[in-house]
Amino acid sequence: MGDAYAALMSRMKEIETVGQIQGLLGWDQEVMMPPKAAPLRAEQLAWLSRTSHSMMVETSMGDVLAAAESEGAGDEVAAGNLRLIRDAYDKATKKPADFVERFARHKSKSIVSWAEAREKNDFSIFRDDLAEMIELNRELAEYLGYDDNPYDALLDIYESGLCVAQVDPLFAGLREALVPLIAAVGNCESPDMSWINSHTWNEEDQAQLSHGISESIGFDFDAGRRDKSTHPFCGGANPDDVRWTTRYDEAEPFGSLYGSLHETGHGLYEQGRPRHLDFQPAGHADGLGVHESQSRLWENQVGRSLAFSEWALPHWNKHFPENMNGVTGEMLWRSVNLVEPSLIRVEADEATYNLHIMIRYEIEKQLINGDLAIDDLPDAWDDMYEQYLGIRSSNHTQGVLQDIHWSMGAFGYFPTYTLGNLYSAQLLLAARHDLESTESLEEMWSRGEFTPLLEWMRSRVHARGSIISPSDLIEEATGTSPSPQPFIDYLRAKIERLYGIKA
Amino acid sequence: MGDAYAALMSRMKEIETVGQIQGLLGWDQEVMMPPKAAPLRAEQLAWLSRTSHSMMVETSMGDVLAAAESEGAGDEVAAGNLRLIRDAYDKATKKPADFVERFARHKSKSIVSWAEAREKNDFSIFRDDLAEMIELNRELAEYLGYDDNPYDALLDIYESGLCVAQVDPLFAGLREALVPLIAAVGNCESPDMSWINSHTWNEEDQAQLSHGISESIGFDFDAGRRDKSTHPFCGGANPDDVRWTTRYDEAEPFGSLYGSLHETGHGLYEQGRPRHLDFQPAGHADGLGVHESQSRLWENQVGRSLAFSEWALPHWNKHFPENMNGVTGEMLWRSVNLVEPSLIRVEADEATYNLHIMIRYEIEKQLINGDLAIDDLPDAWDDMYEQYLGIRSSNHTQGVLQDIHWSMGAFGYFPTYTLGNLYSAQLLLAARHDLESTESLEEMWSRGEFTPLLEWMRSRVHARGSIISPSDLIEEATGTSPSPQPFIDYLRAKIERLYGIKA
Repeated sequence: MGDAYAALMSRMKEIETVGQIQGLLGWDQEVMMPPKAAPLRAEQLAWLSRTSHSMMVETSMGDVLAAAESEGAGDEVAAGNLRLIRDAYDKATKKPADFVERFARHKSKSIVSWAEAREKNDFSIFRDDLAEMIELNRELAEYLGYDDNPYDALLDIYESGLCVAQVDPLFAGLREALVPLIAAVGNCESPDMSWINSHTWNEEDQAQLSHGISESIGFDFDAGRRDKSTHPFCGGANPDDVRWTTRYDEAEPFGSLYGSLHETGHGLYEQGRPRHLDFQPAGHADGLGVHESQSRLWENQVGRSLAFSEWALPHWNKHFPENMNGVTGEMLWRSVNLVEPSLIRVEADEATYNLHIMIRYEIEKQLINGDLAIDDLPDAWDDMYEQYLGIRSSNHTQGVLQDIHWSMGAFGYFPTYTLGNLYSAQLLLAARHDLESTESLEEMWSRGEFTPLLEWMRSRVHARGSIISPSDLIEEATGTSPSPQPFIDYLRAKIERLYGIKA
Repeated sequence: MGDAYAALMSRMKEIETVGQIQGLLGWDQEVMMPPKAAPLRAEQLAWLSRTSHSMMVETSMGDVLAAAESEGAGDEVAAGNLRLIRDAYDKATKKPADFVERFARHKSKSIVSWAEAREKNDFSIFRDDLAEMIELNRELAEYLGYDDNPYDALLDIYESGLCVAQVDPLFAGLREALVPLIAAVGNCESPDMSWINSHTWNEEDQAQLSHGISESIGFDFDAGRRDKSTHPFCGGANPDDVRWTTRYDEAEPFGSLYGSLHETGHGLYEQGRPRHLDFQPAGHADGLGVHESQSRLWENQVGRSLAFSEWALPHWNKHFPENMNGVTGEMLWRSVNLVEPSLIRVEADEATYNLHIMIRYEIEKQLINGDLAIDDLPDAWDDMYEQYLGIRSSNHTQGVLQDIHWSMGAFGYFPTYTLGNLYSAQLLLAARHDLESTESLEEMWSRGEFTPLLEWMRSRVHARGSIISPSDLIEEATGTSPSPQPFIDYLRAKIERLYGIKA
């Protein structure tokens, strides 16, 4: 690669540095900031965002990028960098400045009306702002461009290259398998949860349990932190400074532990990024879907396995000797795997979760394409919950108003959650193929040996950064393109074992 | 004021925003950052510093500033802003870029050799780097310019307008009064410290004690934080986000409490800044000397008064019921006021502290002016300690190598510590004149009424920002120019009372 490429990468280093600072300030805002500091913090974040945006869209950036592209292909890293920078540059420059401002202003406004509508259980308060947000997203799709479907342009924002033609069959496969599976569980007896509800779970002990388990799995606390926040997340600045959070409920200990495992999965991915690509776009994680595959892997496929529960039991006993009296690894395993259709996505179990996402995907697609009118939305929502999960919300707060995403203008984001679940099952299957020559992964986990699986993810996923696109990465690592089948197989086997049914 | 002034203030808002972000990242680095994150944090801070510097020195900045100056005087705030911006612009542009880089590079190098020299008690390891640092500071003085004495240019960096002609008489007055006073104490019996040394002082209880007392004095924890760090400091982003730290020693509780009172004093000043001048230079605190006056006021003149000890005793009792058994307010007061010549500045008491500073001031002045050769420095140091404090260090680690300042190239900084002590005594005297119509401030403090004194400081000092220069501010608030006499009177009266002597 030549001089133009070098000049381009030097510009990207500055933009990346601003991004790292934004990451820290965002973390601080959620975790440390005193309440009165919010308005001036917004000024700081706005300045960073303006500065980073101007660096990306200035005319000379387009010139340097074009010059670097014309210098020729280079290696796969350079090709990856050029692909990612071109994508970011186009996305940043295709939107007129006045549109960006209108969008930002409407976002601030509609987050407020959504919050009020949700609190008062009154969809009409949010209706007009949502309608305008849908219009703005259609306008956005036109600026960004698409081949078949305007919704494709929105999907592509959150997972590079994603489109309806790819996502439709994934959800169709899921729907076909999951709906009857979940219905079958409905006729079974629920696991015993009384040992949880009859005790108090001290916050500090929960924190120590989560911390120790996160460390056992491989999170490096010399290059990261654990803290408490209202909304759990994984953020920070860079692979040496990865900060995840959790929250606590003294009435039950699973929220904090499995939330911690989830954020630990995100954190491991960040800590595993290829360090020779620091400050380069190709050195970043490969989009939201792959990120979610790493969090879901450790949260669900590892963390909710019987082997893991048996390994973790002594840790539970150490921190909660009285509460855990008489609880076996199997009881623990059954309790953390309760399958039960519910109205609220963020509380949904591993089996029903993807139906929540599927419903949002279908609705978004129809809203953007004009196949569903805004006034028909609340009923459409409830009808789909009834059809697929067999339950119906009695109010909009627990229905169509539950998620913040649409008020923020994020249409096309939800599907990445399900992609993560599908990818994680594909990746685990491929890892088994490579690692299970003498014993199963479960046998390793039951002894606390998580390193082989982590090392596999490090080399096949983390170390690859975003050199190639997410779907290429999954195909390279697993030998198959994105597919729902491994997830369906995994879930069916687990549920059959848990509930003693043949589904 | 006209368009140029408005354009200038808009530029300053950006520079100020960067400064706020630097404040947060600096705090995070000391308090929260995981150890491996240090190298990339340095990149983030370097970018912020480069960005802020370029905004200040770009040619158009000089043009806008000159145009704003030619628009005419405006009100006192505009005049203050113009004075401060001109000063900052000149200081930033008078130094050639290659000098700034040489200085920064040598600073990194000599901090390392200083640390090694200090650890190994070997001045020769630091000698050459210190000699070069002195040369660099002479070069800096030439760039910045001065009337009489090169050292004036350096003093002016840390306290606008300060010069040898002002500082010499202050230290002369102090020296004349303090040396015999401290010598007289040497013949007296020391207070009983056994109740401290015979107990362990639990860290969490110390933290709660400090927190409660800081809050009682007036620190707003909705606009700030208290945390723990190796080196206590007060930082943060702005008046809504003021963050101070302390450290703990379970062998004695005064370090954390009086450190907390000190940082609370800095924090109160920050929280009291004039909010209509947000993002304007004139809205900032008025330099290091006035800042130190606020920390010293609450730490020493309030915090080490008998009235304060009597008010605080129930708080001590609440957090340390066993340790405080039999301890009276007067015993507490005597213990926190132990006067004892010592070798280490940062551990020095209220009476001897300013002699430590005076010694550094005299030495710096001679080093910069070429009146003291680098190889004579260690002996000169020890001789002055013997002459003024009656003690001599047996090694350089506890002598000339104890402070980090010279390795960082900070010549001219030390005097601001003493200015703070002098200003605080002047300010307290003026406040007494205004507030003590029916009862003394001590009577108010003994009931926990700190608001009258804080409100006085708010209106006379904090709310004035840096609209006028530090020495003008002191004169405006107290009616007299900077002087050592109120501090000497205060200290003599206190020591006579504590030790029952007539000095």
